Amino acid sequence: MGKNKNKNPELFSVLLKDPSTHARLASLKIGKQEIATPAFMPVGTLANVKAVWNSDLIEMGYEIILANTYHLSLRPGAELIARCGGLKKFMGWPNAVLTDSGGYQVFSLADNLRFHKEGVEFKSHIDGSQHLFTPQLVIEKQRLLASNIVMVLDDCPPANASLERVQESLERTHRWANDSLENFEKEASDEQHLFGIIQGGLKEELRQISLDFIQDLSYQGSNFDGIAIGGLSVGEERDDLYNILAYLAPSLDPKRPHYLMGVGAISDILEAVKNGVDLFDCVLPTRNARNGQAFTSHGTLQLRNQIHKEADEPLDHNCPCRVCSHYSRAYIRHLFQAKEIMAAMMLSYHNLFFYAQFMAKLRQSIKENKFKAFYKHWKSIFS
Amino acid sequence: MGKNKNKNPELFSVLLKDPSTHARLASLKIGKQEIATPAFMPVGTLANVKAVWNSDLIEMGYEIILANTYHLSLRPGAELIARCGGLKKFMGWPNAVLTDSGGYQVFSLADNLRFHKEGVEFKSHIDGSQHLFTPQLVIEKQRLLASNIVMVLDDCPPANASLERVQESLERTHRWANDSLENFEKEASDEQHLFGIIQGGLKEELRQISLDFIQDLSYQGSNFDGIAIGGLSVGEERDDLYNILAYLAPSLDPKRPHYLMGVGAISDILEAVKNGVDLFDCVLPTRNARNGQAFTSHGTLQLRNQIHKEADEPLDHNCPCRVCSHYSRAYIRHLFQAKEIMAAMMLSYHNLFFYAQFMAKLRQSIKENKFKAFYKHWKSIFS
Repeated sequence: MGKNKNKNPELFSVLLKDPSTHARLASLKIGKQEIATPAFMPVGTLANVKAVWNSDLIEMGYEIILANTYHLSLRPGAELIARCGGLKKFMGWPNAVLTDSGGYQVFSLADNLRFHKEGVEFKSHIDGSQHLFTPQLVIEKQRLLASNIVMVLDDCPPANASLERVQESLERTHRWANDSLENFEKEASDEQHLFGIIQGGLKEELRQISLDFIQDLSYQGSNFDGIAIGGLSVGEERDDLYNILAYLAPSLDPKRPHYLMGVGAISDILEAVKNGVDLFDCVLPTRNARNGQAFTSHGTLQLRNQIHKEADEPLDHNCPCRVCSHYSRAYIRHLFQAKEIMAAMMLSYHNLFFYAQFMAKLRQSIKENKFKAFYKHWKSIFS
Repeated sequence: MGKNKNKNPELFSVLLKDPSTHARLASLKIGKQEIATPAFMPVGTLANVKAVWNSDLIEMGYEIILANTYHLSLRPGAELIARCGGLKKFMGWPNAVLTDSGGYQVFSLADNLRFHKEGVEFKSHIDGSQHLFTPQLVIEKQRLLASNIVMVLDDCPPANASLERVQESLERTHRWANDSLENFEKEASDEQHLFGIIQGGLKEELRQISLDFIQDLSYQGSNFDGIAIGGLSVGEERDDLYNILAYLAPSLDPKRPHYLMGVGAISDILEAVKNGVDLFDCVLPTRNARNGQAFTSHGTLQLRNQIHKEADEPLDHNCPCRVCSHYSRAYIRHLFQAKEIMAAMMLSYHNLFFYAQFMAKLRQSIKENKFKAFYKHWKSIFS
């Protein structure tokens, strides 16, 4: 890790390290904004967090959200967004935005994948149109989107991929990482930061090779601003996920932010924070909300269940959110039964409120040297 | 109109009458709340105004909304709502609620209508279950809902009904009105007020008969607290609607509130206010929002149109609402194209904001003796 000279020494500052785990309290500085980590990023796939107003996200305390380069490139197009002043102006979001590279979406959503030396060709899941994503192109798309954190294109195989496929993905991911860093640094701007992604499936040796490669990669003295762990939460057993996190923890460059892509179950966040992860994103709180699931301090509730039919009590007595202050489980169940838009609005709001509070308490627990007790308490609820 | 002794002399006070039309500025007092009229009531069919938070409706200035007895009786049931503390507590709405009787819905939505002497039998549009609505039963349902304004059951034929059918509906509507008033007054409460409904299709003579009957009806010295005009906006030509409104205006009891049911196009509101109407309800601003239509100070916009694809400007430069302050037409069009819930949320919010401002300006114009100019200005935009 000799080449970790960072061109943004002020981008990330670790404020406090938990003495008995790898958990840490830190600050990610994007422009004038300071993002307290560990942080959860709500997912705004199509340039909005589904069914939740931006003003509510800000009130909840969210300082950064994620948007998807793959989806936005197909619809409405990165060029259109650029002409409308960039993603943040387009979607009326004043805080920070991270855009993923589309790697995961290409491999999970698109059809007819064909690898070329320069990138990956695929058919849009929307209209079947043909596209070619290269490391350079997805950087260019993210420049047009003008997001604050830009992700490199990676090759993200599924959990059941063969060893051969994982090795192939590693070679490709590393080659693309190199192309990405070079392309990014040639026109680097103070407004954007580039994160590298490690792959390697569930093989410890491959993960180590990938981590070393990505952390050491540099172009004219600059390296990646953050390290993302990709290729997890793609269908593997929970124990396998936890094993890789524990394996990687001691080798993660402590000076850079660590982002675990696509992970967001409460139990997984706890495990990842324990192993030094700082950033998370996941559709869980909003997607599950639309399916009737609420997160509470006592676990989850399925609001469609008959048991809530006459339940004249809030989702969570301990929750001070707008939904828990004014509405009963019986009412929210009625909205779901009647297929009202408001059902999705209420649970999406509540679940993101819950996540914001959970992350704030998690940070507080590190600050007060109580992370272990926090971990134990929440693990017993969300096991 | 000799029997118009009102048991709630303080319920409705006319503050100002326009000198050259029947328009008037008035106040409807529900408990401690004073509703400034002419007023528009957003429709909360299933115990919520679709896609709009209550807190936003309150901020916009809405003092009363409408909910549907037919829909709520079928799902989740008036009894369940009563056990949850009544409709206002159930749906977390602190201001006033008017519930319709279900008459219009039975005749427009339900299947297999069969008239009995005591009421109307029908099959639910949801699950085909058999129901019988009687004047007594719908009052009882509305008592369970604990709404502030209760509507009588009426027989509401379509615009193309035969003269025979309209005459039949009149006889039935009047008989039911009598049963309703008697039933209501036997257990009258200070919390609830009963409005009668006139029918008569597009025939002036029948309308006059119905108005006289409903306005004169009394039970033990009490009569209806308000007069509703039903059976309009059911498919007739606009000229026919306007003709009936102009015909009825001189005969409407000036001391009671006048409610034109189901009407809400801007042009129709102007015509009705000119003819002495005080209350309106309509799904137009919210339903049209979900279909991509925005109301603006220059007319309507269809956001799905290609023309808005790159339009980096607000829906309405003159509108101070949250949507017009932060989002462009191009962005909202993108949300519609991508079928995002937020598309419906944004236009529903904006349209109801527009309606609230329109009604506030309308009241101001009466106050300042400028209603005629107001009428002319808006008629030229929404003709």
